[in-house]
Amino acid sequence: MAMRIPIARAVKRATSSSPATSFIPPCASRWRRGNATMAPPVTQNSVGSKGPTAMVFMNMGGPSTTDEVGDFLSRLFADGDLIPLGRLQNYIGPYIARRRTPKIIKQYAEIGGGSPIRKWSEYQAAEMCKILDQTSPETAPHKPYVAFRYADPLTEDMYKQLITDGFGGGKGGRAVAFTQYPQYSCSTTGSSLNELWKWRSRLEGKRATTGEVDQEGAIQWSVIDRWPTHPGLVETFAQNIEKKLLEYPKERRHDVILLYSAHSLPMSVVNRGDPYPAEVAATVHAVNERLGQKHQYRLVWQSQVGPQPWLGAQTSNTVKSLMKKGHTDLILIPIAFTSDHIETLYELDKEVIGEDAKGHEGVKRVDSLNGNPVFIEALADLAKTHLSSGIACSKQMTLRCPGCTSERCLASKEFFAGQSLQLKTDLTGAA
Amino acid sequence: MAMRIPIARAVKRATSSSPATSFIPPCASRWRRGNATMAPPVTQNSVGSKGPTAMVFMNMGGPSTTDEVGDFLSRLFADGDLIPLGRLQNYIGPYIARRRTPKIIKQYAEIGGGSPIRKWSEYQAAEMCKILDQTSPETAPHKPYVAFRYADPLTEDMYKQLITDGFGGGKGGRAVAFTQYPQYSCSTTGSSLNELWKWRSRLEGKRATTGEVDQEGAIQWSVIDRWPTHPGLVETFAQNIEKKLLEYPKERRHDVILLYSAHSLPMSVVNRGDPYPAEVAATVHAVNERLGQKHQYRLVWQSQVGPQPWLGAQTSNTVKSLMKKGHTDLILIPIAFTSDHIETLYELDKEVIGEDAKGHEGVKRVDSLNGNPVFIEALADLAKTHLSSGIACSKQMTLRCPGCTSERCLASKEFFAGQSLQLKTDLTGAA
Repeated sequence: MAMRIPIARAVKRATSSSPATSFIPPCASRWRRGNATMAPPVTQNSVGSKGPTAMVFMNMGGPSTTDEVGDFLSRLFADGDLIPLGRLQNYIGPYIARRRTPKIIKQYAEIGGGSPIRKWSEYQAAEMCKILDQTSPETAPHKPYVAFRYADPLTEDMYKQLITDGFGGGKGGRAVAFTQYPQYSCSTTGSSLNELWKWRSRLEGKRATTGEVDQEGAIQWSVIDRWPTHPGLVETFAQNIEKKLLEYPKERRHDVILLYSAHSLPMSVVNRGDPYPAEVAATVHAVNERLGQKHQYRLVWQSQVGPQPWLGAQTSNTVKSLMKKGHTDLILIPIAFTSDHIETLYELDKEVIGEDAKGHEGVKRVDSLNGNPVFIEALADLAKTHLSSGIACSKQMTLRCPGCTSERCLASKEFFAGQSLQLKTDLTGAA
Repeated sequence: MAMRIPIARAVKRATSSSPATSFIPPCASRWRRGNATMAPPVTQNSVGSKGPTAMVFMNMGGPSTTDEVGDFLSRLFADGDLIPLGRLQNYIGPYIARRRTPKIIKQYAEIGGGSPIRKWSEYQAAEMCKILDQTSPETAPHKPYVAFRYADPLTEDMYKQLITDGFGGGKGGRAVAFTQYPQYSCSTTGSSLNELWKWRSRLEGKRATTGEVDQEGAIQWSVIDRWPTHPGLVETFAQNIEKKLLEYPKERRHDVILLYSAHSLPMSVVNRGDPYPAEVAATVHAVNERLGQKHQYRLVWQSQVGPQPWLGAQTSNTVKSLMKKGHTDLILIPIAFTSDHIETLYELDKEVIGEDAKGHEGVKRVDSLNGNPVFIEALADLAKTHLSSGIACSKQMTLRCPGCTSERCLASKEFFAGQSLQLKTDLTGAA
């Protein structure tokens, strides 16, 4: 499976799918044509914004129970941003999903019956908001939400809940889309943002026949779209590695090899200019610098599937090759996810350590960031900096991949670029 | 051509190929069998070393005149580290080289009849040594040398000159191999080090029949093997970009896209775990951070040849795609070379800017680092830090790529790892 991501329990607030009182009829047909120049610039001035502020954690999500695996895979293989199957997406996608479901159900069963990603996402968002209420009183109160791409709570349900809770739908208000992928890929953060923009259009679009868009009272969105080398992120990874190194006898510790493992991408995505591989490398470099470059290391790539070429070297092959050469003290570091999920609990722990390394005691995995308080402080720091910056999204996010042909991406990026322009106008006006 | 690198004039000192007085007969047959456990640990204690110190700049080099193109290409296609052609290397290599020579001669003719890489390398090494004599008096005097992999001055000639000049050959002395590739690849720095180790073995090996190696009086080598995010390197790139941005009208400047272009690698090299792509990405990230992340950017890859898959996105395609989308303000930044050479002067300037961008005034290239004094200060800082560190090479360099099967790499790395061990022993003994 391309992106095997786990489940969880839900933030009640974000999953309740009671019809939103201020629900606005979908008007996505226009959007679907990719008429992206229609994308409305939102009149957002985040410098002057007041609370409450919705803090929306975006991730792929994962099935909380094995019963949800079928739906999860159906949505995953229907997503052309993640797995581009062309015109036949709606036919081939469900077929592959059905075919893979029994195997994936077994894998989730082996890691306890579901993914903990929802539990951790909800915990991280809630704890971060508590800190933010203290450190950013001008945007308080901060309300935590979770929006998953392929599992509950879905983006659609999160958006309806926002409206139920009094955001948008004529009442305005401010929300921050905070990607939980530290490194940006069109397959992950890009896909979540495209989905958010879709539901924003459907639920708050109010398009006029002239092509003008009246978004008065709609939610003002801004995005934390990447944070590959935030010092708090780097510190958490480094501390987890240092902790794991202590499990080796002192005389072996110096020669332990660090294997930073990230989800791979198909070469077709890499070659169209996806920024993810370079940003993952930036995280790896920053962590190694923090560790004083004292250990041998490699950045390796996991979770390749299917016959098409993916970016390597592969995690699995690397572990096997190194062990063959006599290197049996290896620490695996999942460097592109912040919570445990099937890629850590099944792929790394059971397949790579259990099978490839035959359970060798020298091959270990660092803890995922999960509920680590240093990590949650980092999230709060990122959010506070963003809220006070007046920036709608990073400059980098507004550049489509050179080889991109996706109308969804164009529409979504124009929306966020529009926010930046609007924001700039507001700031200039205020100056 | 896989690596199209330029010419220059020569450092007289390093090119004079008069027979070395203390020349020791080659004994490479053993080495050729890859019996790498034979590699002698050098009794080096760089902390306690005194001058003179030989500072050897390693690079691929390039033909200084069009007459040298044939020899240059012959050596390049004979190098299995760079272009692995298997058992038929000695047959296919010369054939490809001969076939490509006329085309490459034309390219060098178009950039003035040769590559300036030798001129710049000699200048950089000499200027750096002047600074080092001031900042590191304990290892002074510092004597500059240049060793190219495929053009004059060749590694072999440089080594013989070292011996002529009184280094090694029974007299001991200290030399630093300083790669002029900021980011490590087995195809570039790795190949140069393998070559250095080969000539070190041949000229100073004195192997005994027991398998013991007597290297008393041999040169003590240490290596500066990578420096992808040295602050001075990052600063020079950033200043050059800022300078180039000033050439755009103020109202366009903010939206200029930065395209960091590095020499690509075949996917077979990437997939065996070559560290280069991740280190190039680290440089790009550091430069963008220094620039305040104010510009859209991409890391792109140039100089792909032949039918096998290479790492992308390609520089040429990226420029064409972006221009098609209306982005015509683009700055090309050669991020993995420090001097001008055929990849900048011909590929970027003539092919990408001249042909792909049809000479559009918005598409520009930053100056190469060449004789930039900020860059030369950076080189001196790197060298001084290395000389006072007592480190023989980076920890990372001693790890072979997980998919590596090269006996040359094994032997070379064991040699340098041996130096580290020896150094550690010396330090412990001295403590």
